[in-house]
Formats: sequence, C-alpha cells, structure tokens
Amino acid sequence: MSKKNILFVMADQLRADYLSCYGHPKLQTPAMDWLASRGVRFDRAYVQATVCGPSRMSYYTGRYMSSHGSTFNGVPLRVGEMTIGDHLRPLGLRTALVGKTHMAADIEGMRRLGVAPNSIEGVLASQCGFEPYERDDGLWPDQVVPEDLPYNRYLRSLGYNVENPWHDYANAGRDEAGDVQSGWYLRNAGLAAEVKEEHSETAYMTDRAMDFMREAGDEPWCLHLSYIKPHWPYIAPAPYHDMYSADDVIDAVRDPSERENPHPVLGAYMQHEESLNFAKDEVRRLVIPAYMGLIRQVDDHLARLWRFMEEHGLFENTLIVVTSDHGDYLGDHWLGEKEMFHEQSVRVPMIVYDPDAAADATRGTSSDLLVAAIDLAPSFVEFAGGTPPDHILEGQSLLRLTRAQGAIAPEEWRSAVVSECDYAFRGARLQLGTEPSRSRAYMVRTERWKYIYFEGYRPQLFDLVEDPDELVDRGEDPTLEPVRELLRERLFDWIRTRKMRVTISDAEVERRTDNHKQRGFYFGVW
Amino acid sequence: MSKKNILFVMADQLRADYLSCYGHPKLQTPAMDWLASRGVRFDRAYVQATVCGPSRMSYYTGRYMSSHGSTFNGVPLRVGEMTIGDHLRPLGLRTALVGKTHMAADIEGMRRLGVAPNSIEGVLASQCGFEPYERDDGLWPDQVVPEDLPYNRYLRSLGYNVENPWHDYANAGRDEAGDVQSGWYLRNAGLAAEVKEEHSETAYMTDRAMDFMREAGDEPWCLHLSYIKPHWPYIAPAPYHDMYSADDVIDAVRDPSERENPHPVLGAYMQHEESLNFAKDEVRRLVIPAYMGLIRQVDDHLARLWRFMEEHGLFENTLIVVTSDHGDYLGDHWLGEKEMFHEQSVRVPMIVYDPDAAADATRGTSSDLLVAAIDLAPSFVEFAGGTPPDHILEGQSLLRLTRAQGAIAPEEWRSAVVSECDYAFRGARLQLGTEPSRSRAYMVRTERWKYIYFEGYRPQLFDLVEDPDELVDRGEDPTLEPVRELLRERLFDWIRTRKMRVTISDAEVERRTDNHKQRGFYFGVW
Repeated sequence: MSKKNILFVMADQLRADYLSCYGHPKLQTPAMDWLASRGVRFDRAYVQATVCGPSRMSYYTGRYMSSHGSTFNGVPLRVGEMTIGDHLRPLGLRTALVGKTHMAADIEGMRRLGVAPNSIEGVLASQCGFEPYERDDGLWPDQVVPEDLPYNRYLRSLGYNVENPWHDYANAGRDEAGDVQSGWYLRNAGLAAEVKEEHSETAYMTDRAMDFMREAGDEPWCLHLSYIKPHWPYIAPAPYHDMYSADDVIDAVRDPSERENPHPVLGAYMQHEESLNFAKDEVRRLVIPAYMGLIRQVDDHLARLWRFMEEHGLFENTLIVVTSDHGDYLGDHWLGEKEMFHEQSVRVPMIVYDPDAAADATRGTSSDLLVAAIDLAPSFVEFAGGTPPDHILEGQSLLRLTRAQGAIAPEEWRSAVVSECDYAFRGARLQLGTEPSRSRAYMVRTERWKYIYFEGYRPQLFDLVEDPDELVDRGEDPTLEPVRELLRERLFDWIRTRKMRVTISDAEVERRTDNHKQRGFYFGVW
Repeated sequence: MSKKNILFVMADQLRADYLSCYGHPKLQTPAMDWLASRGVRFDRAYVQATVCGPSRMSYYTGRYMSSHGSTFNGVPLRVGEMTIGDHLRPLGLRTALVGKTHMAADIEGMRRLGVAPNSIEGVLASQCGFEPYERDDGLWPDQVVPEDLPYNRYLRSLGYNVENPWHDYANAGRDEAGDVQSGWYLRNAGLAAEVKEEHSETAYMTDRAMDFMREAGDEPWCLHLSYIKPHWPYIAPAPYHDMYSADDVIDAVRDPSERENPHPVLGAYMQHEESLNFAKDEVRRLVIPAYMGLIRQVDDHLARLWRFMEEHGLFENTLIVVTSDHGDYLGDHWLGEKEMFHEQSVRVPMIVYDPDAAADATRGTSSDLLVAAIDLAPSFVEFAGGTPPDHILEGQSLLRLTRAQGAIAPEEWRSAVVSECDYAFRGARLQLGTEPSRSRAYMVRTERWKYIYFEGYRPQLFDLVEDPDELVDRGEDPTLEPVRELLRERLFDWIRTRKMRVTISDAEVERRTDNHKQRGFYFGVW
C-alpha cells in the first residue's frame, strides 16, 4: 500500500443519534452503517466547540478553540496557525477541499506579512490549508452571495436562469398554491426544494469529490468532502422532502423541570427564537422529517461515492472518516440549534475506516472511549507516514485504537474530553449583559460526569450514568461539591497544558537542553 | 506637541535594587535617578518571564508568555504574533531597534507563508517588528559570531584587527602577567576589558541611538535602545572595572535554612554551576563590583544621551522608559542567574518619563502599584494617539498612572501580577526528570503574597509583609492553605482569560452580535 489517501467526510450539524448505526429507530443510513461495519464506530466522540467555525478550526488545526483562537463563526483563524494541509503536504499528500470549511481569512495578518491573497501561500492561508478544489460554505442570501459562486454557475448552466439560483431553487419550495416559499422559514420545511435532487448541493459536492479523485489519479491525496447539509435551511429536494413523516420523529428529550429556574445562560438560550420555535411540537413534527430527509440524502450520495471508490480500488489505500462538526438540539432540552453542551449538540458521529491490515481486528466494532475532533489531525499525519508534531497537535492518533489488537482499557486512554463555547456573538449574551471577552463556557466530560464551567455563572453538572438524558442539572447539588471540585481541577490542568510553544518540538528542546557550553556560551563558570 | 517619540531603554539583567534611586547604598546611578526625578518610579514592576527571550517577547508583544508562546531563549516567536512595531507603525512612528532583542525568527512559519526573509515584511517578522537599525544581541563566541557583525566591523575599523574583536577585546582582559584572559570566566571579572571604554558595546549602542535620532529628524519614532549590559560576561572596561570594590558589595540575601530541604525545583537550580559558584563569597566579592561597574557605565552613557536629547529638545515630546528584562540573583537565595521568582529575579526597575503636561503632577513620585512589562505596549499605543487593542494586548496603559491627578488606590488597579517560567531547556529539568512540556511554573504576586505554582511539584508561598526577603517558604504551611487556595484560584482566573481571539476586537464582536438577520441569515424563524 504505497499510495495512501485520506477521505475526510464531514456532514454539517449531523447529530450522532440520527444515524441508524447509532440507534435511530426510523432513519436508515445504510452507507454510513456499511462504513461502520468495515471500520470502528466511536460512540463517544466530541467536538471541541459546538458551533461550525470554531469546531471546524479545531478539526483542521488539531487544536482546542482556546489554542487556535477562532472562537466563533467569522472570527479569522490567525495567520500562521498550522492546519491539516500544512502537516500533510510535506508528507506528499495533495490536500484539497470540496464543500464547506467556514474559514474566515486573517486578511489583516496576511497584509502585515505581505502575503498576497492570490499567491499559493495566500490562498492556502485563506482556505485553512486546503487547496480549494471546490469551496462552498452554503448559505447564500443575496446580501452575501459572490457573483461567481461555482455552484450557482453550475445551476445556471443547467437552466436555473436567475441571479442567485441557490436562493431561488436550492433554498425555496413551492406551496400548494404554487407560490414560491423561502427555505429560510421553518414553516416551509415540508416543501420540496425547487432544485432537482441530482442538482442539489449534496449531489453536486459528491460529483465534485469524484471529479477530484479522478483528477488526482496516482498522486496521494487528502480530500475533505464537507457537505453543507443537513444544516439548516431545513428544506430537501424530492423525494427526500416527504420520505419521513411526523410519525418518524423521535420524542423530544426534555422535561418541564428544565425550564423552571434554569441555569442563567441556558435560560437565555431558551429565549432565542430557534429555541422558542423548536419547543413547539408542531415545529418539530414539520422540521425534523426534513432534517431526516437531508441526512438520508447525504447517505445515499455516500453510497454512490462508495461505489465509485470501490470501482477505483480506493478502499485498499484510503483512510475514511465520516463525522460532523456538531449536532442539533431540534427542541431537546427546550433548545434549538447547538452551542450548549448536551449530548445532542456536542456529541458527533465518528466512523473511522482504516484500510491497513493492522486494523482488521477492529472492523465492525464500536468503541466507547472518549475521542475528540482534534484526534483526526494526528491520525491523518500518522496514517500518511509522519510523526504527529505533539508540540502543536493537541489530540491523539486514533490509529492506536483502529489498530489495537486487544481491548484498550479506559485508563490507557484519555479520561476526559474538553469542549468550549464562546457565546459573545449571540443574543443570549445581550440578554445576560455579559462582556464579549467573558462570555465563555467549558465542558469537561468524563466517563461518568459532564461538568460545565461558565465564566461568571454557576457550573452545570450531569451524572451521565444516573441521568443519561441530562435532565437533572446537579450544578448546585451540595453533595456533589467534591465531584465538581475534581472536575474543576481537571479543567485547570487542561488549560495550563495547552500547547503554545508551537515553534519548537519537545525533541528539539531535549537536544538543546543544557547545551550552552557546546555552543560557546559560558556562564557561571569560575 | 504634535511630534511624539518613544524611547524605550532596556538594560539586560539589571536588578531594580542596583539603582541608587531604588536604594542601592553604594552604587550611584545619577542619570537614571534624574529621569526618575522627572517621571514616575515604579517600585513594584514585574516581568512576565524571568529569562531574556520570553521576557522580551512579552515586552514587545504586550502579552503573557503563554499567549505569545516563545517560552525560552531561542524559541521562535510564531509568525504573525503582533509586536509594538505592528501597533505603532500605523500610528506613524518609525519603530527601530538599537541593540538586543533576543528574537528568534520563525523561519519555518515564514517559509510556509511565502514571506521572503529579506522582504520588508520578512525583516520585520524576523526582527520582532523593529526596523533593525542596529541589531546586536551581544554574546558572540567564535562558534556563532556572524562574519559581518556591525560591532565587530566597527572595532576592526578602529584597529582591533582580529577576526572576532568582540571576543578578543570586548570580552577579554589582561592579567598581571600580561596574559589575555577570557571574560567568560567569573574568575576574570576583576580585569579591565581589553576594549577601550569609548569603543565598548555600551558606548557604541549609545552612539548608534544618537545616530538614529539625528537621522530620524522630524519623523516621529519609537526607538528601542536595548543595552547588552550589565548581563554577563561580567567584565567592564577601565575605569569601570575597578570603580567598585568588594567593600561595596551588599550582603547576600540568603539563609542557610533555604538549602535545607528546598523546594525540588529550587533545589535543582541550586545545583547549577552558576548557583554553586555564586554561593561562594569570594565569587560575589569579585564579580559583583564588575556588575556594578557595568551598570554605572550604562548610567554614564544615559547621561550622555540625556544631554544629547536636551540639546535636541527631545524631552518635550519623548516618552522615555528605562527598564530591564529581569534581574540577577548574584548569589541571593543560593542562586545565580535568574529564572526563579524571588524579587531579585522577577522585579525590575521601571522609570517612566511622560513629557505630557498632564503628567506634571506625578513628576518625581514613586508608585507601589503592581505594574508589569506588558503594560508598556498599551502605554506606547496610547501615547502615540492610538487605542490599545484590548483583544490582543494583555497589559494596561501606565499613562493612567503617570497622568493621575490624585492617588490611585490599589483596588482601582490590578491586584496581582503574573509571571511565568519554562525551565525545559535547563539542567534542572534533567536533574528532576521532568518532561519538556511540563516543566513550567507560574508566579502570582499580590500586595502581600507571592504564590508560585509548579507543574508536578508543591507550590511555594512567601509572605512579603512578614518576610520581605523571602527567606521562609510557606508553601507547605497548613495554616496558609486558604491563602494558597485563593491564589491558585487567581491563577486559574488569569489563565482562562488570556487573549487568544486576536483577530477580532470586542467592539467588532459587539457590532456583530445577534446580527444574522441583517446579513440575510434566517434561522429558527417560523
């Protein structure tokens, strides 16, 4: 297996429990399930931030949000912060993107350093280290859509002859009266998108991934196939728009007691428009079937991709990961969207297919070890034959788990995962009157506990053994003070040991330790 | 006062208590004292790291060591990390260097971004944001001296005709037998350096500073005049080599009890060669007079500089700071060099002359508020007419203190300063068997207490009111557990609130908060 490829598939806002292999009772995801049957399904995989931009920056840099500094959508990743592409390109892998990254370029930083945005280095710095084979973040209202958006050009070439076909076709449906209705509104989630399914973003991105694989030929590659869906707007093309019905919607995980005297930050989030709407059963019953349809559509296109890869012999030498950047509350815990740290938001599907024969022993198994989004970057580096730079990357390679020849006990692996949230940009902050630099929260999740530290507010605590649905916040339970104290300590340990000395490796430090005399520097010598 | 300049003078390894205005009984520093008489003398000024490189990077970036990531000498400052020059240049100040910065360029990072080292941006990125009017870090053993070191060219032009005149003249003396002896060895500290005083590094750098001021003319500037001395090698040219004698040496601040069962990290440092040597009185009695001579020499050249500036009317429009990057144990606490957190190491002189009439009320006063090296960057930005970017800079402008019209109470200012140490590169780490990524320590110094948190070891605690000499480590005193608990909490607070979201200001966050609908993004809307 001399040529090694990596296919890093991400779906946006895909909840772990909306895959059939993760237990959804109604939604079938055979393509993802099939991959899981040939790889390892991680049942406790957590993102390091619960909103697209920062979560992705953690995936792409292999570093925590507080380390890479891009704390919310639209916050530029500081120039010079290394990404997967920077690590893989020297190992010989063409590292490219099809789809979304949510990367905001640090234009000011590039200008200061004289990096021309259209130079090779400038493009890579702007695109998070990926060659933008097809960059498309989705979500193109007229106010922001670029004139030359390739997907719009594609749609226009097919006869969708308007200025912004994304808006008028991909994100619009026709009601019973024949009037065009916008996909932005939840009330229209049941309509079929005006775009034909085979022209939808999901189909198009899959086509583009295959284009890339064909084009790359014998050159080793890492392709980030990053689907825009099932992220809102919740509107699916036929036949996916009505493939599921209200009867297929699983019950909301919520209890009236959660709304009585909630944690202040949670309480503010419950007042967000999306939370108020998803708190209503009629909204859930209309929207969730569309969400399910969008997931099934992604899965069907993955099936198409698997067939293509099979035909091209790519399963022999390609590491494949299917994951998501965060989940979706969909009304659970009286919340919409994501951002807080319940399992619906912070836990993601994570399926890893490792083609190496050393991984044969784990095929079709699942693992409930605590794994993290930041584990992918070192996994990729190791798979590509490199040594993960452990003064930069903050995760651990998952190949140790895919290639394990026996069970790995929890105590041999990390005992807690950390995730972060900066809610400075959200209405909740205004309601709470918190400063932008202080509106932060941190989750520490261990085998049993989920502890959430909020700047300026009391913590939350959930006992995931006694209360797996996280309905009872024990953040103020006096009997659990020792538990909170320990978890707070874990948070302190974690934050002290983030990796900021990124320009010199530990090995280089070892080489330089106490070597001043060899270099001619004598001090303190009599 | 339309033209505004900044003169940022740093002496290297200059202990605060070796200035007469800070109370040295024998050493007179009239030029620094005179500046203090016209400005504010800060009696509790602390560096953010206790070794040259990281301390300077904190001065130059206005950020803590854990934020800028350059944790020791020779650890490159990551490309893109903003410095004083990046903040001042847009305000119209030519920002230049004469002397030492200890900057290591992030060559790898620049290469990744395609920044040519000899482009303007490449030079600035390599020189910590300073125009290198004269860059010279001092310390030039033959192994590392560049062929074209300007100071060596200068010496050769004066007839010091050897390959490395720094080594043979500036860092060498002649013993009674007429043999040349190396300044690297402490035993030669009493000899006069072979270089003539007027050709010494201190004289030369002062000349170069005046060259710069002449050349800059009416253009506003910030000049970092960064003396190489009184840092070791401890060898001074005549007449400074014997201006002070063993009788002028102040007693060592140390107690035999400090060596009995010391803190493990301190104990390891006490085994360093420089500590073992400075523990001997004969070493102190020979070396400290040379150290004092080097300081007096810097002071005499500052007097020359003040005269020059007076003649050129520069006191009317120039903010002047005199400080140091850290102190020098000189045998106190049985230690040599610096790095640990006793006052001799972490406290520095800090004299700020603010030419503005608003500062007239504070001229000649002293302040015992807790100030920090990182306070200079925002002070400079404010002085130059800018607004300190408080999502990047972690200090507070001192102009609030120089321009105070009445006393500022401690509770209106910061209540603790933090400093950091990474001893990964030092022999102590090998002796302790600590990993390079875990050999860290943090100091939290409040009005009364100094708490030091060591990774993997017990803390230290000093009561600066009861024990101002820091002879009794209360790190294990059970009665002080609540104090340590509080200070530990302060450290946790500090480390959580470091500024990593450097690409977007708080004001910009405010503008963007909850504005998704204005930008056309509708989510959660029914």
